[in-house]
Amino acid sequence: MSEEHRSGCPINLTLEVLGDRWSLIVIRDIMFGNRRHFRELMQGSNEGIATNILADRLRRLVENGLLTKEDDPSHKQKSVYSLTEMAIELVPLLAHMGAWGRKHLPVSDALAIRAEILEEGGPQLWSDFMDELRARHLGTPLTTDTPSVLARLTQARNEVAAREKSA
Amino acid sequence: MSEEHRSGCPINLTLEVLGDRWSLIVIRDIMFGNRRHFRELMQGSNEGIATNILADRLRRLVENGLLTKEDDPSHKQKSVYSLTEMAIELVPLLAHMGAWGRKHLPVSDALAIRAEILEEGGPQLWSDFMDELRARHLGTPLTTDTPSVLARLTQARNEVAAREKSA
Repeated sequence: MSEEHRSGCPINLTLEVLGDRWSLIVIRDIMFGNRRHFRELMQGSNEGIATNILADRLRRLVENGLLTKEDDPSHKQKSVYSLTEMAIELVPLLAHMGAWGRKHLPVSDALAIRAEILEEGGPQLWSDFMDELRARHLGTPLTTDTPSVLARLTQARNEVAAREKSA
Repeated sequence: MSEEHRSGCPINLTLEVLGDRWSLIVIRDIMFGNRRHFRELMQGSNEGIATNILADRLRRLVENGLLTKEDDPSHKQKSVYSLTEMAIELVPLLAHMGAWGRKHLPVSDALAIRAEILEEGGPQLWSDFMDELRARHLGTPLTTDTPSVLARLTQARNEVAAREKSA
Protein backbone atom coordinates (compact mmCIF):
# COMPACT_ATOMS: atom_id res chain seq x y z
CA MET A 1 0.00 0.00 0.00
CA SER A 2 1.23 3.46 -0.84
CA GLU A 3 2.70 5.49 2.00
CA GLU A 4 0.44 8.33 1.01
CA HIS A 5 -2.71 6.66 2.31
CA ARG A 6 -3.76 7.61 5.81
CA SER A 7 -5.11 4.13 6.52
CA GLY A 8 -6.06 0.95 4.71
CA CYS A 9 -9.72 1.23 5.72
CA PRO A 10 -11.91 0.76 2.62
CA ILE A 11 -14.10 3.74 3.51
CA ASN A 12 -11.07 5.96 4.06
CA LEU A 13 -9.43 4.86 0.82
CA THR A 14 -12.64 5.42 -1.11
CA LEU A 15 -12.93 8.92 0.30
CA GLU A 16 -9.27 9.58 -0.48
CA VAL A 17 -9.63 8.45 -4.09
CA LEU A 18 -12.87 10.28 -4.69
CA GLY A 19 -11.24 13.33 -3.17
CA ASP A 20 -13.55 16.17 -2.32
CA ARG A 21 -17.17 16.52 -3.32
CA TRP A 22 -16.40 18.04 -6.72
CA SER A 23 -14.91 14.76 -7.92
CA LEU A 24 -18.19 12.91 -7.47
CA ILE A 25 -20.11 15.83 -9.02
CA VAL A 26 -17.91 15.52 -12.13
CA ILE A 27 -18.45 11.74 -12.25
CA ARG A 28 -22.20 12.30 -11.84
CA ASP A 29 -22.27 14.69 -14.82
CA ILE A 30 -20.29 12.34 -17.05
CA MET A 31 -22.37 9.33 -15.95
CA PHE A 32 -25.90 10.76 -15.95
CA GLY A 33 -25.50 13.74 -18.24
CA ASN A 34 -23.19 12.00 -20.73
CA ARG A 35 -21.05 15.14 -20.83
CA ARG A 36 -17.75 14.00 -22.22
CA HIS A 37 -15.92 17.24 -23.05
CA PHE A 38 -14.49 19.89 -20.78
CA ARG A 39 -16.71 22.61 -22.22
CA GLU A 40 -19.91 20.59 -21.77
CA LEU A 41 -19.01 19.81 -18.17
CA MET A 42 -18.29 23.47 -17.56
CA GLN A 43 -21.32 24.99 -19.24
CA GLY A 44 -23.85 22.40 -18.12
CA SER A 45 -22.81 22.50 -14.45
CA ASN A 46 -25.81 22.98 -12.16
CA GLU A 47 -23.42 23.76 -9.34
CA GLY A 48 -21.38 26.32 -11.30
CA ILE A 49 -18.05 24.53 -11.02
CA ALA A 50 -15.07 26.85 -11.53
CA THR A 51 -12.79 26.24 -14.53
CA ASN A 52 -9.68 25.58 -12.46
CA ILE A 53 -11.50 23.20 -10.11
CA LEU A 54 -12.94 21.24 -13.04
CA ALA A 55 -9.51 20.99 -14.68
CA ASP A 56 -7.90 19.85 -11.43
CA ARG A 57 -10.56 17.25 -10.62
CA LEU A 58 -10.52 15.80 -14.16
CA ARG A 59 -6.74 15.45 -13.92
CA ARG A 60 -6.95 13.78 -10.51
CA LEU A 61 -9.73 11.43 -11.60
CA VAL A 62 -7.60 10.32 -14.57
CA GLU A 63 -4.60 9.84 -12.23
CA ASN A 64 -6.68 7.79 -9.82
CA GLY A 65 -7.99 5.50 -12.55
CA LEU A 66 -11.61 6.69 -12.56
CA LEU A 67 -11.52 8.39 -15.95
CA THR A 68 -9.58 8.00 -19.17
CA LYS A 69 -8.84 10.94 -21.47
CA GLU A 70 -8.43 10.54 -25.21
CA ASP A 71 -8.34 12.74 -28.28
CA ASP A 72 -11.75 13.14 -29.78
CA PRO A 73 -11.55 11.67 -33.31
CA SER A 74 -14.14 14.17 -34.56
CA HIS A 75 -12.49 17.29 -33.08
CA LYS A 76 -8.73 17.23 -33.11
CA GLN A 77 -8.39 19.94 -30.45
CA LYS A 78 -10.84 18.33 -28.05
CA SER A 79 -10.38 15.58 -25.51
CA VAL A 80 -13.11 13.14 -24.62
CA TYR A 81 -13.40 11.73 -21.11
CA SER A 82 -14.67 8.21 -20.44
CA LEU A 83 -15.58 6.40 -17.24
CA THR A 84 -13.48 3.36 -16.33
CA GLU A 85 -14.96 0.12 -14.97
CA MET A 86 -14.00 1.32 -11.48
CA ALA A 87 -16.07 4.48 -11.94
CA ILE A 88 -19.00 2.63 -13.54
CA GLU A 89 -19.16 0.47 -10.41
CA LEU A 90 -19.94 3.61 -8.41
CA VAL A 91 -23.54 3.43 -9.72
CA PRO A 92 -24.94 1.66 -6.61
CA LEU A 93 -23.10 4.12 -4.34
CA LEU A 94 -24.47 7.12 -6.25
CA ALA A 95 -27.96 5.56 -6.23
CA HIS A 96 -27.78 5.25 -2.43
CA MET A 97 -26.44 8.77 -2.13
CA GLY A 98 -29.34 10.06 -4.21
CA ALA A 99 -31.88 8.09 -2.19
CA TRP A 100 -30.49 9.40 1.08
CA GLY A 101 -30.44 12.97 -0.22
CA ARG A 102 -34.00 12.70 -1.47
CA LYS A 103 -35.18 11.49 1.92
CA HIS A 104 -33.34 13.92 4.14
CA LEU A 105 -32.50 17.07 2.20
CA PRO A 106 -34.39 19.87 0.37
CA VAL A 107 -34.02 18.49 -3.17
CA SER A 108 -35.63 20.08 -6.22
CA ASP A 109 -38.13 17.97 -8.20
CA ALA A 110 -36.39 18.23 -11.58
CA LEU A 111 -33.05 17.22 -10.13
CA ALA A 112 -34.44 14.46 -7.90
CA ILE A 113 -36.47 12.50 -10.45
CA ARG A 114 -33.46 10.52 -11.66
CA ALA A 115 -32.60 9.55 -8.10
CA GLU A 116 -36.22 8.47 -7.59
CA ILE A 117 -36.19 6.22 -10.67
CA LEU A 118 -32.85 4.69 -9.68
CA GLU A 119 -34.09 4.04 -6.16
CA GLU A 120 -37.30 2.41 -7.34
CA GLY A 121 -35.52 0.38 -10.02
CA GLY A 122 -33.12 -1.09 -7.47
CA PRO A 123 -30.19 -3.41 -8.20
CA GLN A 124 -31.63 -4.70 -11.51
CA LEU A 125 -31.89 -1.21 -12.98
CA TRP A 126 -28.41 -0.30 -11.67
CA SER A 127 -27.02 -3.39 -13.34
CA ASP A 128 -28.73 -2.53 -16.66
CA PHE A 129 -27.43 1.02 -16.39
CA MET A 130 -23.89 -0.20 -15.70
CA ASP A 131 -24.03 -2.45 -18.79
CA GLU A 132 -25.15 0.52 -20.80
CA LEU A 133 -22.33 2.66 -19.42
CA ARG A 134 -19.84 -0.09 -20.27
CA ALA A 135 -21.09 -0.03 -23.87
CA ARG A 136 -20.89 3.74 -24.03
CA HIS A 137 -17.60 4.31 -22.22
CA LEU A 138 -15.64 1.08 -22.63
CA GLY A 139 -16.96 -0.06 -26.00
CA THR A 140 -18.27 -3.35 -24.59
CA PRO A 141 -21.10 -4.74 -26.71
CA LEU A 142 -24.53 -4.55 -25.08
CA THR A 143 -25.79 -8.02 -24.26
CA THR A 144 -29.43 -7.06 -23.75
CA ASP A 145 -31.81 -5.03 -25.86
CA THR A 146 -33.63 -3.43 -22.94
CA PRO A 147 -34.60 0.23 -23.46
CA SER A 148 -31.87 2.72 -22.56
CA VAL A 149 -31.81 3.60 -18.86
CA LEU A 150 -30.02 6.87 -19.59
CA ALA A 151 -32.70 7.87 -22.11
CA ARG A 152 -35.39 7.06 -19.55
CA LEU A 153 -33.65 9.08 -16.82
CA THR A 154 -33.07 12.02 -19.14
CA GLN A 155 -36.63 12.04 -20.47
CA ALA A 156 -38.11 11.93 -16.97
CA ARG A 157 -35.89 14.80 -15.93
CA ASN A 158 -36.82 16.93 -18.95
CA GLU A 159 -40.52 16.30 -18.37
CA VAL A 160 -40.36 17.43 -14.75
CA ALA A 161 -38.29 20.47 -15.72
CA ALA A 162 -40.82 21.43 -18.44
CA ARG A 163 -43.71 21.02 -15.98
CA GLU A 164 -41.90 23.22 -13.44
CA LYS A 165 -41.28 25.87 -16.08
CA SER A 166 -44.92 26.01 -17.26
CA ALA A 167 -46.33 25.95 -13.70
CA MET B 1 -34.43 25.50 -0.12
CA SER B 2 -31.64 27.51 1.39
CA GLU B 3 -29.82 29.95 -0.89
CA GLU B 4 -26.56 28.44 0.27
CA HIS B 5 -27.00 25.22 -1.70
CA ARG B 6 -25.35 25.12 -5.10
CA SER B 7 -28.15 23.00 -6.56
CA GLY B 8 -31.12 20.90 -5.46
CA CYS B 9 -29.64 17.70 -6.85
CA PRO B 10 -29.81 14.96 -4.18
CA ILE B 11 -26.23 13.86 -4.83
CA ASN B 12 -24.95 17.42 -4.61
CA LEU B 13 -26.90 18.12 -1.41
CA THR B 14 -25.65 14.90 0.16
CA LEU B 15 -22.07 15.83 -0.64
CA GLU B 16 -22.64 19.35 0.69
CA VAL B 17 -24.05 18.07 3.99
CA LEU B 18 -21.42 15.41 4.47
CA GLY B 19 -18.82 18.05 3.69
CA ASP B 20 -15.35 16.79 3.07
CA ARG B 21 -14.08 13.28 3.65
CA TRP B 22 -13.32 13.84 7.34
CA SER B 23 -17.00 14.14 8.14
CA LEU B 24 -17.72 10.60 6.97
CA ILE B 25 -14.59 9.34 8.73
CA VAL B 26 -15.94 10.79 11.99
CA ILE B 27 -19.36 9.22 11.40
CA ARG B 28 -17.66 5.90 10.61
CA ASP B 29 -15.76 5.97 13.92
CA ILE B 30 -18.86 6.82 15.93
CA MET B 31 -20.94 4.21 14.09
CA PHE B 32 -18.55 1.26 13.87
CA GLY B 33 -16.13 2.09 16.68
CA ASN B 34 -18.78 3.34 19.10
CA ARG B 35 -16.46 6.22 20.02
CA ARG B 36 -18.70 8.77 21.59
CA HIS B 37 -16.30 11.27 23.19
CA PHE B 38 -13.92 13.75 21.64
CA ARG B 39 -10.87 12.15 23.21
CA GLU B 40 -11.78 8.64 22.02
CA LEU B 41 -12.33 9.90 18.48
CA MET B 42 -9.00 11.68 18.61
CA GLN B 43 -6.87 8.95 20.13
CA GLY B 44 -8.41 6.04 18.26
CA SER B 45 -8.15 7.67 14.84
CA ASN B 46 -6.51 5.38 12.29
CA GLU B 47 -6.14 8.33 9.98
CA GLY B 48 -4.58 10.61 12.58
CA ILE B 49 -7.24 13.31 12.44
CA ALA B 50 -5.98 16.70 13.73
CA THR B 51 -7.64 18.17 16.84
CA ASN B 52 -8.90 21.29 15.10
CA ILE B 53 -10.33 19.32 12.17
CA LEU B 54 -12.11 16.92 14.51
CA ALA B 55 -13.58 19.81 16.50
CA ASP B 56 -14.72 21.59 13.35
CA ARG B 57 -16.30 18.49 11.77
CA LEU B 58 -18.12 17.52 14.97
CA ARG B 59 -19.56 21.04 15.17
CA ARG B 60 -20.65 20.96 11.50
CA LEU B 61 -22.17 17.50 11.82
CA VAL B 62 -24.23 18.71 14.80
CA GLU B 63 -25.29 21.81 12.82
CA ASN B 64 -26.29 19.69 9.84
CA GLY B 65 -28.41 17.35 11.95
CA LEU B 66 -26.21 14.25 11.70
CA LEU B 67 -25.08 14.23 15.33
CA THR B 68 -26.42 15.39 18.64
CA LYS B 69 -24.17 16.52 21.48
CA GLU B 70 -25.15 16.14 25.12
CA ASP B 71 -23.50 16.30 28.49
CA ASP B 72 -22.30 12.93 29.59
CA PRO B 73 -24.22 12.08 32.80
CA SER B 74 -21.22 10.12 34.14
CA HIS B 75 -18.57 12.79 33.45
CA LYS B 76 -19.76 16.33 33.98
CA GLN B 77 -16.96 17.85 31.88
CA LYS B 78 -17.42 15.51 28.94
CA SER B 79 -19.83 15.62 26.04
CA VAL B 80 -21.21 12.54 24.39
CA TYR B 81 -22.01 12.48 20.68
CA SER B 82 -24.87 10.43 19.27
CA LEU B 83 -25.90 9.61 15.72
CA THR B 84 -29.29 10.94 14.58
CA GLU B 85 -31.73 8.86 12.51
CA MET B 86 -30.45 10.70 9.44
CA ALA B 87 -26.90 9.53 10.14
CA ILE B 88 -27.99 5.99 11.02
CA GLU B 89 -29.58 5.77 7.58
CA LEU B 90 -26.11 6.24 6.05
CA VAL B 91 -25.37 2.56 6.85
CA PRO B 92 -26.24 1.29 3.33
CA LEU B 93 -24.19 4.10 1.77
CA LEU B 94 -21.18 3.29 3.96
CA ALA B 95 -21.61 -0.43 3.24
CA HIS B 96 -21.47 0.31 -0.50
CA MET B 97 -18.50 2.60 -0.02
CA GLY B 98 -16.67 -0.15 1.86
CA ALA B 99 -17.53 -2.75 -0.78
CA TRP B 100 -16.29 -0.51 -3.58
CA GLY B 101 -13.09 0.30 -1.70
CA ARG B 102 -12.44 -3.36 -0.98
CA LYS B 103 -12.80 -4.24 -4.64
CA HIS B 104 -10.76 -1.44 -6.16
CA LEU B 105 -8.29 -0.12 -3.60
CA PRO B 106 -5.32 -1.43 -1.58
CA VAL B 107 -7.20 -2.07 1.68
CA SER B 108 -5.60 -3.69 4.72
CA ASP B 109 -7.10 -6.95 5.97
CA ALA B 110 -7.79 -5.85 9.54
CA LEU B 111 -9.57 -2.71 8.39
CA ALA B 112 -11.48 -4.39 5.57
CA ILE B 113 -13.03 -7.30 7.45
CA ARG B 114 -15.96 -5.20 8.69
CA ALA B 115 -16.69 -4.05 5.14
CA GLU B 116 -16.57 -7.66 3.99
CA ILE B 117 -19.08 -8.79 6.62
CA LEU B 118 -21.39 -5.88 5.82
CA GLU B 119 -21.19 -6.63 2.12
CA GLU B 120 -21.93 -10.31 2.58
CA GLY B 121 -24.71 -9.65 5.07
CA GLY B 122 -26.51 -7.36 2.63
CA PRO B 123 -29.66 -5.34 3.32
CA GLN B 124 -30.88 -7.62 6.14
CA LEU B 125 -27.69 -7.18 8.15
CA TRP B 126 -27.68 -3.41 7.49
CA SER B 127 -31.23 -3.23 8.75
CA ASP B 128 -30.35 -5.18 11.93
CA PHE B 129 -27.34 -2.93 12.45
CA MET B 130 -29.47 0.20 12.02
CA ASP B 131 -31.94 -1.09 14.62
CA GLU B 132 -29.04 -1.67 16.97
CA LEU B 133 -27.69 1.83 16.33
CA ARG B 134 -31.16 3.27 17.02
CA ALA B 135 -31.19 1.47 20.37
CA ARG B 136 -27.70 2.69 21.20
CA HIS B 137 -27.92 6.27 19.96
CA LEU B 138 -31.61 7.16 20.05
CA GLY B 139 -32.73 5.00 22.97
CA THR B 140 -35.28 3.11 20.84
CA PRO B 141 -36.03 -0.32 22.32
CA LEU B 142 -34.61 -3.22 20.31
CA THR B 143 -37.41 -5.24 18.75
CA THR B 144 -35.34 -8.31 17.95
CA ASP B 145 -32.97 -10.37 20.06
CA THR B 146 -30.54 -11.13 17.25
CA PRO B 147 -26.86 -11.14 18.27
CA SER B 148 -25.19 -7.73 18.19
CA VAL B 149 -23.92 -6.79 14.73
CA LEU B 150 -21.46 -4.33 16.25
CA ALA B 151 -20.03 -7.03 18.52
CA ARG B 152 -19.65 -9.35 15.55
CA LEU B 153 -17.92 -6.68 13.45
CA THR B 154 -15.60 -5.71 16.30
CA GLN B 155 -14.70 -9.30 17.13
CA ALA B 156 -13.90 -10.13 13.50
CA ARG B 157 -11.72 -7.06 13.27
CA ASN B 158 -9.83 -7.87 16.46
CA GLU B 159 -9.23 -11.44 15.31
CA VAL B 160 -7.76 -10.36 11.99
CA ALA B 161 -5.63 -7.73 13.73
CA ALA B 162 -4.31 -10.32 16.20
CA ARG B 163 -3.51 -12.73 13.36
CA GLU B 164 -1.64 -9.98 11.49
CA LYS B 165 0.32 -9.11 14.60
CA SER B 166 1.41 -12.71 15.27
CA ALA B 167 2.22 -13.41 11.60
